[in-house]
Order: sequence, then structure tokens, then C-alpha cells
Amino acid sequence: MSFPRIDETHDPARSSWVEGADGHPAFPIQNLPYGIFSPPGGAARAGVAIGERIFDLRAAAQTGLLPAAASAVFGEPTLNALMALPAADRLALRRWLSALFSDEAQRPATEPLLHRAADCALHLPATIGDYSDFYVGIHHATNIGRLFRPDNPLLPNYKYVPIGYHGRASSIRPSGVPVVRPRGQRKPPEADAPVVGPSQRLDYELELGIWIGAGNALGETVPIADAADHIAGFCLLNDWSARDFQAWEYVPLGPFLAKNFQSTISPWVVTAEAMAPFRIAQPPRPQGDPQPLPYLWDEADQAQGALAIDLEVHLSSAKMRAEAMPPMRLSRGPAFSMYWTAQQIVAHHASNGCNLNPGDLLGTGTLSGPTPDSFGSLMELTGGGQAKIVLPTGEERAFLEDGDELALSAVARADGYVSIGFGECRAMIAPAR
Amino acid sequence: MSFPRIDETHDPARSSWVEGADGHPAFPIQNLPYGIFSPPGGAARAGVAIGERIFDLRAAAQTGLLPAAASAVFGEPTLNALMALPAADRLALRRWLSALFSDEAQRPATEPLLHRAADCALHLPATIGDYSDFYVGIHHATNIGRLFRPDNPLLPNYKYVPIGYHGRASSIRPSGVPVVRPRGQRKPPEADAPVVGPSQRLDYELELGIWIGAGNALGETVPIADAADHIAGFCLLNDWSARDFQAWEYVPLGPFLAKNFQSTISPWVVTAEAMAPFRIAQPPRPQGDPQPLPYLWDEADQAQGALAIDLEVHLSSAKMRAEAMPPMRLSRGPAFSMYWTAQQIVAHHASNGCNLNPGDLLGTGTLSGPTPDSFGSLMELTGGGQAKIVLPTGEERAFLEDGDELALSAVARADGYVSIGFGECRAMIAPAR
Repeated sequence: MSFPRIDETHDPARSSWVEGADGHPAFPIQNLPYGIFSPPGGAARAGVAIGERIFDLRAAAQTGLLPAAASAVFGEPTLNALMALPAADRLALRRWLSALFSDEAQRPATEPLLHRAADCALHLPATIGDYSDFYVGIHHATNIGRLFRPDNPLLPNYKYVPIGYHGRASSIRPSGVPVVRPRGQRKPPEADAPVVGPSQRLDYELELGIWIGAGNALGETVPIADAADHIAGFCLLNDWSARDFQAWEYVPLGPFLAKNFQSTISPWVVTAEAMAPFRIAQPPRPQGDPQPLPYLWDEADQAQGALAIDLEVHLSSAKMRAEAMPPMRLSRGPAFSMYWTAQQIVAHHASNGCNLNPGDLLGTGTLSGPTPDSFGSLMELTGGGQAKIVLPTGEERAFLEDGDELALSAVARADGYVSIGFGECRAMIAPAR
Repeated sequence: MSFPRIDETHDPARSSWVEGADGHPAFPIQNLPYGIFSPPGGAARAGVAIGERIFDLRAAAQTGLLPAAASAVFGEPTLNALMALPAADRLALRRWLSALFSDEAQRPATEPLLHRAADCALHLPATIGDYSDFYVGIHHATNIGRLFRPDNPLLPNYKYVPIGYHGRASSIRPSGVPVVRPRGQRKPPEADAPVVGPSQRLDYELELGIWIGAGNALGETVPIADAADHIAGFCLLNDWSARDFQAWEYVPLGPFLAKNFQSTISPWVVTAEAMAPFRIAQPPRPQGDPQPLPYLWDEADQAQGALAIDLEVHLSSAKMRAEAMPPMRLSRGPAFSMYWTAQQIVAHHASNGCNLNPGDLLGTGTLSGPTPDSFGSLMELTGGGQAKIVLPTGEERAFLEDGDELALSAVARADGYVSIGFGECRAMIAPAR
């Protein structure tokens, strides 16, 4: 297992000449996430976020400011080629960029390639060939399982199989793109037959996204000990869900139209290298749980395969915004309620020879904590819509209403290191068409 | 609803100067399917099959042999741009090609661009952004449902919802690429815990694939009356399935590793235009079945939305081939055991605003007929492995063995028209690695 190591780029004493970078809550020099952006009037290209600025990697490559191996990967307006680079080349690029932004002597050549982030548009960071979503948040699986199957919340396979399913790649959108309330079939409990209309139980799901770096050939596997080498980075993922459609359609082949109308991601790829200081031990399995099968078990993964990330969800209604109220926090919790690590997810996905490709996106599934203040969906927070949430305006919410804006956020924290954030993952609900 | 009309290209009297085209069981001049091929020593490019030849569309476009609208779409080694063309442009290209191959005066300019198909390699015809698989073969759904849920074979949603789920796009391969037997978790009925190893219940599934032509924007739908305009063509699809993995992993989120290790398609896109004479009425729903919801109901679709295609499956074992025995037919049946039409599948998929893109592939699900001689999987033919099939060598098969080669075939037939075939959809099982 080769998790990236902590190096000089994580030094908490390292500061940047870029205005606003030091002390930035998401993008200090210790982060350096990659994304695809358009400057005003310009075409989409690769960039790296620092403070409130975006550094133009395409221009930097063209002007010879980057190491040779990295220069070749910024020709296209996607990060797929960057993600596919060997880990050593990705690390070299990170160290190079960190030096550019910390060394005052580099400022004259570097500063002209910085854009104000507020002036730029952000896009999907990669062409997502395939998107798979997992179900590793054990508290979520238990909570949701109880609502759908009161007597049988966790199925017998849960503690052996990192349960996952394929999702829709085409409808993944970056933060900020409104979500049109989907129409579909739902079957009211008292009705004999389904009806069609806008979803009445529109929900969010708080997840982490895992960006695949190096892929594996069809028919080959990714051993658990190598899985970390196949992860390029992380993002936030909101797996919007129409619970009424889901309840009706999901047997026997799983969720489909209940989830594929849109998924929202934070557009910055927080790299595996940046996450090095925030690696922690996977919590021990509860007493009596089975030992994972050998292809999923690695001591190094257990020792440092989890992520010290704090997650939050905020909601603002149209009325709250009209009254200039701040968003209301719906939940807050750590990301380590994952029953399986990101590496176990990757190893399982490829264990049958399924080929993963650079730029594939894997979702963790909803990351609810053990207590209601850390539940990662309205379905859980309201007990299936029974216990409504009261907003500061006095409005009530069982599920999302038109005009509601939902924002996910994540901060990686570790003693002795500078915290790094994931950036925005927000979207507003637009009325059904 | 605008299904392509029967025109002069379907004229059974139309013959071709291309040697072997007239009377060809799959690719007479009335078919003209598109694909991506490489001639000996050459790069991948678009072509059209006629008889035992492949016409080089890229070269034809470069030399001015094609209509202007079509010339622009053959720059890339995929058919996505062709599929995205307006239906009128696709039809114009078909008529142009049909004229080229039927008019002896065109022969001198056209013949040099024909390659012997036997010398060429065939590739995937499109970059498949998303692959979704459905479950519309009602006999299959009933047969499989009975094996997994004896008391409850068809779930209550089946006759309201064209049940589907997302599949894996990256592992779709054209005919001829061997299938490596996957490893994975299975739980023997008598065991307390799962074990890991090569699948012991490897199966095939006989399906049709639907190629999406024109897409729809995220948040927009495809009305059932327009759905035919969004279908570029059809292929054969073998949705290889590890039944032992499937039984253990599929609850609650559906099949995943049981199916995503590989899917095999026939590499030629049989166009919607070519299928015009083979449009038939959808069989009436059984007495007592509910009326489809309005978004799935269209009189024109019911009148001509089904396809008159005869499907067959053949198996040959290594021993059969060593003894020069012909493949054994496992089943034969018509494709109209689809409870929902291809148009209903498309309209349903986009009904929540999910965006479909040119080159997306939709599978129908296994197309079993009502009787055992037309069942589309070994799971059904052997009653879950209980009733073994005896091969001409005396070998027995409950599920597929290493070295077995499975071949799907399809022929569209209609009185007064020349039958057209789909070409090869075959693959051999390679041992687990």
C-alpha cells in the first residue's frame, strides 16, 4: 500500500505570496486542488485553485513553467490525462506548484497566469466514463434499510460485500447547476396503482466522490495493497434522490430514475497527495462482525486508509434568502462512518476484472454519522418525512421544496497541519417542467 | 411517431454489383449497417457492411463520394457523430449508399474503397457514454423471478414501470473478445459465510441493444411520440452474468459485479432505417393487465413499435470444435416477447429529465420466449442449473465451461422483403486468472 507521504508541501509553516491564500479556509497552499475552468471570454482549461485565485495550468505548460511530464497533459479541457499520470509524476507536479506559489522569486513569471476565481466558470473536472455509487455508510444503510425493510435493515451481504451499483455519468453536473425537480411514477401507499407527477419526496445525499487515477485492464484486478495508487483524488457528491420514485421502482434491479436525473459534485479534485496528513486508521469493526475476505483486507489500509474529513450540510429556502438569513445547518459529522475504505471500494470494484479508467467517479454512498445531528439525508433526518425540520423562518421541511438551496461542505483536519477544504457543492431546486 | 418509412432502399428487387451481396444472409444491399473497422495495417475508421465487404466511409467522404452532411461525421473512429445526425440526414446517406452499390455506373469509383471483411478488424461502433439495461422480456422476468423469489416472480411494479438499471460502459466489447471467467463472492446455500473464487454459474443473456441517436438535454424529456426519432439502430447484446455472484450481491441495489466484467455486442449498427419493413404491432397486453400510464402510451407505437426479429443462440464446446461438430442451438425465438417497446424504454429513461446522448446503449433485457425452446439464458434453460443440457459430445452443461463459445444471432424477416441479419455476436470463455 503506497499512500502519498507527508512532505514539504504540507508544511504548516509554508506560506504563499498569492494574496489571500494563507489562512484560506479551503484552498491554502497546502491544498492545490485541480479543476477545469474558463476565464472570462476564454475556453475551458485546467487550473489549480489557490486562495481566491485560479492558476492557468494550460498557459503555464505552454510557457514552460511546468515540469515536462506535466506539460503534456494539459492540452485537453479535462483532467483525465493528469489523473492517468503515474503517482510519482503527479507528486512531482504538486511539489513544483507548491514551490512556484511559495517562492517569491517565482512571482513575476507566475502571477500573470492567476485569474480571480470569482470571474471564472467551473466545469466538470473530467470526462466521467463510468460512475458507480456505493453504500458504505453503515449508519445510512441501517437507517434507510429500516425505513424500507423495518424487520431487516442490514441485509446479510452488507458486512461481506462493499455494496455498489452503477449510476448515470451523463447527468453529473458541477456545483451551481440547478436541479430540475424530476417527474416520475410513485405509488401512494393507499393507492391501487401508481401516479405520475413531480417528485414529492425529493432528497439529497451527502457523499464523498473518489476519482480514479490509473486504471486497470479488462480482466485484471486491483489488489487491495495497490488500490491507493489508483485513486487520484476526492470531491463532494450530492446524490439527489426522489424517494417516492425509489420506493416504487427499486426492486429487483436497484435505483434508476430515482437518482439519475442529476448528481452534483464539487468541481475541484482534492488530490490524494494533498490528503496525506489526513489519513487515519479505519475504526475497528464492531465486535462480532466478520473478518473481511482476503481480497479486501490489508493491514496498511486498516492503519491509514480512512480520511479525517468533517462534513456539513446547509439548507437555505427562498424565504430565508429573501430575509437575508444565513443557511441553516442540517447536519455535521465525520466521514469515517464508512464501513469500507476507499481502497476497499476500488479493490472490490475491480475484483471481477471490471476495468476502471482514469476519470471514473465512485461515490461512497451517504455518509451519515451515528447520531441524528450527523445524518446525511432528509429521509433519515425526518424519519421518512414524519418529523419535519423547522427552518428559522418557521417554514417546515419533510423533503426539499422548489427554491431550496442545498450546500455540502468538507474540511480535512489533523493536529499540526493546515486544514484544507473541498470547495462548493451546492445547487438549487428548480420547479418541475 | 415517425418511424422510418419503407422506401426504394428496401425494394426486394434491388440488387448490388458488390460480389456476394445479393442473397447474403446478413448484409444484402437492403441492410447497410454501419460499424468501425480497421483494414489491414490501417487505422480504425467508419465503414458500411455489404456482403463480405466493408466500404470505407472515411475514404469515401475524403474523396467526395458522399453527400455533404454525411462527409463531416466520419473524421473520428466512432459513429457517435453519425448517430447524432438528424434522421433526414441519416436517411439521405442510406439512400445515397444504396444507390452507390446498386448502380453499375458507380462501380469504378466505389469498388476501390471496398475491403474484404475477413481481412479487417471490427471495433466498438461508438464511444458509449452510458449503458443502461432493461428487463422487458416478460417471460425472462417471470422465469428468473421464480428462481429468486418463488412466491413472487413478477413484482407489483413490473407492469407499470419499464424496469431498468445502469450497467457498465467500460467493459462492453465487440464480438470475438474472449470473456475471462470472473472471480467473486458467492455464498453456497449450505455455508454460513461467502467464499471467493471463479464463478461456478457463468451464464449468457440474449438481448437486443438499442443505440441512441439524437439525445435530449438534461431536464428535458423524450415524449413517447418522438422516441423513435432518438433511436439510431440496433445490435445484439450478450449480458454475461455470474449467477452465483448475482444471487449474493443483488439486494438491495441490484446487480453489479455479477454483470460488469464484460458485455459483448455485435459490432454492426443495424439502422432504424433498415428496420422499416420489420416493424410490427406490439402484441396486445394480456387480459387484466393495467393500461400503460399516458407518458408510455402511443397508438402509433402500439401499431408498429415492435420488431419482427428471430433470435437464436448456439453453443460449441472445445470438444465439439475439436471433433468438427457444428455448434448446438440452445434456443430460438422471436424478439416480440418484449412487454415494453424500444420506444417505451427510451421515453421512460428520459421521463425524469435524464439526458441521453448519441452513442448511449440500452439493453432490452433477456428476450426469452414463452416456451423452453426459446429461453434466453442457461439459468432458465436448466431451471437454475437443475436440468443439465446434453451436448452432442455427451458433455453436460448446467452453466458455461471454459472453452465454450456462445454465439447470438438475429435475422429480421417480413413477407415480401429481403431478410437482414445482425452479424456476429460471439465470444469464448477464457479461464479465470
